[in-house]
Amino acid sequence: MLDSPIRFDPGGACLRLLDQRRLPEEERWIGCPDAASVAEAIRDMAVRGAPAIGIAAAYGVALAVAGAPAPGGGAGEIRERFEDAARLLLAARPTAVNLAAAVERQRRRLADTLPETLPAGERGGLAGRAARALLAEADAIASEDVAANRRIGELGRSLLPEAPAPARFLTHCNTGSLATGGYGTALGIVRAAAEDGRRVEVFACETRPRLQGARLTAWELLAANIPVTLITDGTVGALLARERVDAVVVGADRIAANGDTANKIGTYQAAVLAREHGVPFWVAAPFSTVDLATADGAAIPIEERSASEVTELAGKRVAAPGAAAWNPAFDVTPARLVSAIVTERGIARPPFRESLAALAG
Amino acid sequence: MLDSPIRFDPGGACLRLLDQRRLPEEERWIGCPDAASVAEAIRDMAVRGAPAIGIAAAYGVALAVAGAPAPGGGAGEIRERFEDAARLLLAARPTAVNLAAAVERQRRRLADTLPETLPAGERGGLAGRAARALLAEADAIASEDVAANRRIGELGRSLLPEAPAPARFLTHCNTGSLATGGYGTALGIVRAAAEDGRRVEVFACETRPRLQGARLTAWELLAANIPVTLITDGTVGALLARERVDAVVVGADRIAANGDTANKIGTYQAAVLAREHGVPFWVAAPFSTVDLATADGAAIPIEERSASEVTELAGKRVAAPGAAAWNPAFDVTPARLVSAIVTERGIARPPFRESLAALAG
Repeated sequence: MLDSPIRFDPGGACLRLLDQRRLPEEERWIGCPDAASVAEAIRDMAVRGAPAIGIAAAYGVALAVAGAPAPGGGAGEIRERFEDAARLLLAARPTAVNLAAAVERQRRRLADTLPETLPAGERGGLAGRAARALLAEADAIASEDVAANRRIGELGRSLLPEAPAPARFLTHCNTGSLATGGYGTALGIVRAAAEDGRRVEVFACETRPRLQGARLTAWELLAANIPVTLITDGTVGALLARERVDAVVVGADRIAANGDTANKIGTYQAAVLAREHGVPFWVAAPFSTVDLATADGAAIPIEERSASEVTELAGKRVAAPGAAAWNPAFDVTPARLVSAIVTERGIARPPFRESLAALAG
Repeated sequence: MLDSPIRFDPGGACLRLLDQRRLPEEERWIGCPDAASVAEAIRDMAVRGAPAIGIAAAYGVALAVAGAPAPGGGAGEIRERFEDAARLLLAARPTAVNLAAAVERQRRRLADTLPETLPAGERGGLAGRAARALLAEADAIASEDVAANRRIGELGRSLLPEAPAPARFLTHCNTGSLATGGYGTALGIVRAAAEDGRRVEVFACETRPRLQGARLTAWELLAANIPVTLITDGTVGALLARERVDAVVVGADRIAANGDTANKIGTYQAAVLAREHGVPFWVAAPFSTVDLATADGAAIPIEERSASEVTELAGKRVAAPGAAAWNPAFDVTPARLVSAIVTERGIARPPFRESLAALAG
């Protein structure tokens, strides 16, 4: 089983990312020696998944600070390098709040590390010390994410129908080890159920246009010996109508204060269909995905990606020449369609404004 | 503009079909000299769309009868050849009723043509006479379909919001000239609105797994100078939530007596989402698609196609090895989600059992 798609290589002073664009055909790791290459890997989706891009960005700013300092540079120059990298990384993908949250956490760590003033003679070691602190913080973000996911798995498992009935899930996109520091959010619940000895069945939406369900979710589940059946994104309604699913379980890219949830395009309609068929709809995410500063879903920026993701397959045009495409990467599921939000701090239930605030503590 | 994807070539005594698997890259016509090759073209979806496969099958049985008769064969042998071909064609795809309806109409035509008994000396010309009658009947089925579609277009146009507001459609799969004898059913309504000088906007679901929306609908609409924007099948909910659509309009493969409608997988969930957003949901089909002998949707056989349509793209595996797929080609939209069924005989409104029976006359 894959531990994590993100590894820091201290020898090479470089972040190594499992290139998710090439899975499942090929397990190729790419090396990112600086923040710009990390930002590019995020933008081009070599690494994707809200928690995973947060972790990658945390390493990205650390790499920026670790870069050779200009002669005579001090705390100001380190801060400048940090902020340049932060801008690059924040611009890479706008919807997932985890990226911004990780950068903000690193900014605080840097502030704690850097003295306000410093004698010129001590400047040489300063960048190294700051970089070590930021790398340690990135390591902490990654390992906290895995721990959060394991707890999400335990809590989510408690929502399932009683054994010995099988636990039958429908999931969308990829929310496993590949999307996180490891273990997974929605797939963490699936995994926890399977580890508990439960019979588990998973239907996975292929998740056009980038097919994360077919390429990544199926790959991860099969590696964990969990059987998976793919469906096209248009088959969700027909599947639910056949009463073959106990719960629809998805991840999140940003959860607003009222519980409105941005997640991979297709999630919203799966939630409408779940309600239509009386199937519970669970969102699983680390609490860092909850953005109390965003009042509701209307305030969440939705990334729109290139039309070519829809009009081309494997680099080859399939759509008729001249056809336009509208390709939002995410949609917003209104809180009224969400049965539960499973976080490592506990399970939030409607009304979410109150329950999420309570978990924020 | 394409007149029809189905042409009978009297010189070559062969049915010529525009190979829809190769569009839009290539406009290649294939020749079918006998019923077996027509059945194969239907099964492999070189020709698809409920009305179109009905027309193709009508020519298919005519070709079977036109084949060189065995020495000494008479009416019995002609009937046998007809029934062998009918079995092959009926087995090719089970859901669309138009195929069975076309074969049944040809069976009646054959019965009208063949005398009960015949002197041995007259047998030579019998097969030729029967074949000419069946070819004429197939021509009639095709031209009646075009006329029905033009009438469907006129009637459906009357349902649109008043000009000068643009008419904004969402459609699924392909229901144009390619799916019919010509002009189209749901796309016939779009076309009729455009011919009326209305400003028309069309969103088209790409329609996985075979991408008829991206490949065929976009190609046809652009050829008719109607702008089209593709979306993935997971984007229907997000699009409707943005209030950019006045009507969801689809075709049908079989309409049961109570109005339950089988159509391309993804249609059912589009209907649920249309109702969720207060958008009317119209089914457009020739009356031959209404199957009064089928009481409701539960009695409609739903074809399940190969998992490889989901797990492979352009012949190359994309899903993780070992992943299963569930690939129903159609789903059933319950009548309660349908706002109107537009046929050439008139527009049926709920309750459909009564309104369809009235149109049946």
